[in-house]
Amino acid sequence: MDDVLAAHVAELRRGTVVLACLCVLDEARYGYALLSTLESAGFEVDANTLYPLLRRLEKQGLLASEWNTEESRPRKFYVLTAAGREVRAALAHEWAALDHRVRTALEGSSR
Amino acid sequence: MDDVLAAHVAELRRGTVVLACLCVLDEARYGYALLSTLESAGFEVDANTLYPLLRRLEKQGLLASEWNTEESRPRKFYVLTAAGREVRAALAHEWAALDHRVRTALEGSSR
Repeated sequence: MDDVLAAHVAELRRGTVVLACLCVLDEARYGYALLSTLESAGFEVDANTLYPLLRRLEKQGLLASEWNTEESRPRKFYVLTAAGREVRAALAHEWAALDHRVRTALEGSSR
Repeated sequence: MDDVLAAHVAELRRGTVVLACLCVLDEARYGYALLSTLESAGFEVDANTLYPLLRRLEKQGLLASEWNTEESRPRKFYVLTAAGREVRAALAHEWAALDHRVRTALEGSSR
């Protein structure tokens, strides 16, 4: 039963990682720093999931990236675009509506 | 951009369909009636997604099914099991925690 629950929990959480990324990338961050920021905020995600996700969000125009070569080790920084900001606002709206529906469903159930 | 947003919205919603099903199946329902109930509650899901999901939840022991053959057309009714009730309670708890994290992230962003 633990595996079943874990799978359903993972499915609930999955879509929120994108929203969390969009929330913390007003300020440019490189992958590893973003990973730490997300973890501190309670969003568990591993590097093997996050890095492809960042590339996907960039391809979708929601993030822009830039190499910072000033330090000894070059790092790719990601930052939110104007389109990313718009999508974040729309997802924030969607989240509120979704939360309302979920809570209403939960209240209606005989817990 | 509409397609991109739609895909992210779908990803946010995906996991909530399971929770919604678990919420409304204290009372036994057949697939089509469940579909209508979910739609009324704002959970958009099509039959091609819902029916396999119900079979999966039954396989996981969260739902039990029974054929009702009293009417002219036999219908398979699904109802929550004790394990389903437990998972629902755990997911309700997870949802509240997730909502808290998402709202905190959104408040921290410069909207």
